[in-house]
Amino acid sequence: MTPEEFRRYGKQVIDWIADYQEKVEAYPVLSQARPGDVLAGLPEHPPERGEGFEDLLADLDRVIMPGVTHWQHPSFFAYFPSNATGPAILGDLLSAGLGVQGMLWATSPACTELENRVVDWMAELLGLPARFRMAGPGGGVIQDSASSACLVAILAALHRAGGGTAAREGLSAQEGLSAREGLTRRPKLYVSSQTHSSLEKAARITGIGAENVRVVDVDPATMAMDPAHLDALLAEDAAAGATPVMVCSTVGTTSTSAVDPVAAIGEVCARHGVWLHVDGAYAGVAAVCPELRWINDGFEEHVDSYATNPHKWLLTNFDCTVMWVGDREPLIGALSILPEYLRNAATASGEVVDYRDWQIPLGRRFRALKLWSVIRWYGAEGLREHVRTGVRLAAELAGWISADPAFELFEQPRFGLVCFRPRWEGLPDEEADAATLALMERLNASGDLYLTHTRIHGRVLLRLAIGGPATTDAHVQAAWRRIGEETRAGAAGR
Amino acid sequence: MTPEEFRRYGKQVIDWIADYQEKVEAYPVLSQARPGDVLAGLPEHPPERGEGFEDLLADLDRVIMPGVTHWQHPSFFAYFPSNATGPAILGDLLSAGLGVQGMLWATSPACTELENRVVDWMAELLGLPARFRMAGPGGGVIQDSASSACLVAILAALHRAGGGTAAREGLSAQEGLSAREGLTRRPKLYVSSQTHSSLEKAARITGIGAENVRVVDVDPATMAMDPAHLDALLAEDAAAGATPVMVCSTVGTTSTSAVDPVAAIGEVCARHGVWLHVDGAYAGVAAVCPELRWINDGFEEHVDSYATNPHKWLLTNFDCTVMWVGDREPLIGALSILPEYLRNAATASGEVVDYRDWQIPLGRRFRALKLWSVIRWYGAEGLREHVRTGVRLAAELAGWISADPAFELFEQPRFGLVCFRPRWEGLPDEEADAATLALMERLNASGDLYLTHTRIHGRVLLRLAIGGPATTDAHVQAAWRRIGEETRAGAAGR
Repeated sequence: MTPEEFRRYGKQVIDWIADYQEKVEAYPVLSQARPGDVLAGLPEHPPERGEGFEDLLADLDRVIMPGVTHWQHPSFFAYFPSNATGPAILGDLLSAGLGVQGMLWATSPACTELENRVVDWMAELLGLPARFRMAGPGGGVIQDSASSACLVAILAALHRAGGGTAAREGLSAQEGLSAREGLTRRPKLYVSSQTHSSLEKAARITGIGAENVRVVDVDPATMAMDPAHLDALLAEDAAAGATPVMVCSTVGTTSTSAVDPVAAIGEVCARHGVWLHVDGAYAGVAAVCPELRWINDGFEEHVDSYATNPHKWLLTNFDCTVMWVGDREPLIGALSILPEYLRNAATASGEVVDYRDWQIPLGRRFRALKLWSVIRWYGAEGLREHVRTGVRLAAELAGWISADPAFELFEQPRFGLVCFRPRWEGLPDEEADAATLALMERLNASGDLYLTHTRIHGRVLLRLAIGGPATTDAHVQAAWRRIGEETRAGAAGR
Repeated sequence: MTPEEFRRYGKQVIDWIADYQEKVEAYPVLSQARPGDVLAGLPEHPPERGEGFEDLLADLDRVIMPGVTHWQHPSFFAYFPSNATGPAILGDLLSAGLGVQGMLWATSPACTELENRVVDWMAELLGLPARFRMAGPGGGVIQDSASSACLVAILAALHRAGGGTAAREGLSAQEGLSAREGLTRRPKLYVSSQTHSSLEKAARITGIGAENVRVVDVDPATMAMDPAHLDALLAEDAAAGATPVMVCSTVGTTSTSAVDPVAAIGEVCARHGVWLHVDGAYAGVAAVCPELRWINDGFEEHVDSYATNPHKWLLTNFDCTVMWVGDREPLIGALSILPEYLRNAATASGEVVDYRDWQIPLGRRFRALKLWSVIRWYGAEGLREHVRTGVRLAAELAGWISADPAFELFEQPRFGLVCFRPRWEGLPDEEADAATLALMERLNASGDLYLTHTRIHGRVLLRLAIGGPATTDAHVQAAWRRIGEETRAGAAGR
């Protein structure tokens, strides 16, 4: 494709996206496609000859769009928001256009140094401790996801726990070859029942094993991790000769956005010498607002690594997780390998950061561009305003739910996620839960809105997550009206 | 940013990229920035108020561009090519604009089903075995990198080797808790000295440990893995009670694009019951050309997993690795976890693919769009033509090198990578190597071209990788002229 063709088709694509943004509300939020529908519209064999880009755009409308669930629809309330805003899309486009691969500082200094700067900007915007800044012993890095951030944190924690032997010797035992004794016994991870599933996945990936994930009790009212039970488990495991590797506490759990008491957990971790990772994937960015900065309580003292996702609530399109460590040495110790073909003068000088050593893959895109673009376009002020809108809308919805005797609010929301359920008076729990799930299926099938569910103490809760940049009072009001209608229809239909 | 603003700024960005494509040759290929230069041009604090997008574009030119190494420059010959073509960039832009997150089929059916189709298209274009198709027991998936593909392959292999116990029990030993016996002893990976460093990194990540990576001998002339030595190591380890987990063979090594004898290696693996992964990151895509399809020899019989990177040579911007498995069961067995909040009717039906279970992170972008766009724009014909141009230019350069008594060609290139060195007649090896590295530094510092190096049998070789879509005869001729000039200057300067 020549630059002239790119100019022409590129502008068509920009118009296509702007049109999409304008008309996104006309689509059903959740795709109505059934398994195989999209596949059936796509030729079985690749084309022998090249085609014009117009053909692709036509097929995009005809075949692909009916199979798209519209995450950017203002009535998308499922999972967590995944904001794709104009400045983020354009920052990503610049990254694709430049096509640089930033595995090493030397392979594009700007890719590394802009990232150095924006992760420091994020640390400042969120009010994070000084040790997380690039000028300190630690620093920040953009990962693809909070899953990968957890995984990388575990590897750094293993490196520290094993005195550097884990990467070399592995976790298995062998006669005559002594991995540091503790690691040949079971290494343990500590989570709560509310911790994201990526921790169990990381336990599998790292060879720790799902059975070595210890589940700490939660407070049954708040679903927050119980530091006293954590303390007891750590003591028990240490007495049994196991090696505690890492505790993962969460600021804003996936199910109900519960906030673990990080300060108290940090104290326990410090006492037992265990790495503390804090997963703030969803809620962490809320700290841009001073009135929500209490979510960072305890960060100053004992947190070893922290991650939050601008690609959820903070207006930056997937993928963009920012992760910080208080000390970069164990991270690099765990992940750095230097084959001859990657050696270069800048790396040898020790003056530069090579981000390949901070992540799982070798290659990396220029993701800092989109975060830079978002922060500059909105400014700190605009970021705060966006978060506050979500919090305000969630509080309003929670108010309506509380005031309606047919519904039960799980708890007062502190962020943008509202958890609730119809009471279905007179129905036994199991039937009530089935009715709630059926209600959700009907709402989602209508295309008017999209929401998901979770289970707390075995009971189904609906999750309605607010935080899209296009979501207004009217969308939340409409959602609440539809939920009320379908609930009454469901109750009458029994 | 409103849709109207997006329309306006988006077209400016498209023009900026088209202009960049037109003038990319005016830039020095390798950035001349020194550590800290870019950082110094960026404000220390994030802006309080939002700024116009014009400001960002101005800073892009002023601050960022001097720190960019131009991977899309037609005289970029370093590492391997990382093609970012128009259709790929536009496919990526569409993905950013739609902003869907395809972790589950249900979260955007089109994201999964278009991917199902394009990985099948790729399998057809490359002539891969039927078991790698989505209709078979296996199937394909887009990963971010060949590093992650190797990692995922190891996890599937561990799952199979441990009878499904690895993910649950981990790799460490504990009294009274029996991981399948073999896995509590040392699990082993088999590579050659030429295997990519991501395998050692994956050994660290998975808890296998770098010391449990066995390095199989290579043929000293071709640098290809020796199947007889592999056989011997496997027998030795089995006798010692270790568990062989996976063999990684390579089609097109990073150092010199050596091709391991996959057919013979596959036979050995089958005999020992070991998983065979083939890493075709760079060269695998060459199989689009029938005359290069010999690189797939042995794939029909014994290969368990295979990966190649359209994001290197096949005109698709980073990241886009396609990975196939012959059997998807161990992969999903190793990686699938289903928390309540991800449960949905489509997943429960078993009729759909949920790609989150085929990869490390949970979230995923709609990367199939860019591969779809590239295949349709170029057609099979255009893809073949692109690969053939790279192969032809490499062969021509190799001819000039062979004909010049001042140079030594490492071997006749079969793909786009040419490895060679000046002879530096009369210099002892160590001084000759230093002179070669100094030559490379001078060439790269000139900004006229960018190439990298490797070491084979301890001696430095220059690597010149051809494969950019804008690279023509004239660029390769100019590179060869500059190399000759600098070499003569270096020889005269002693």
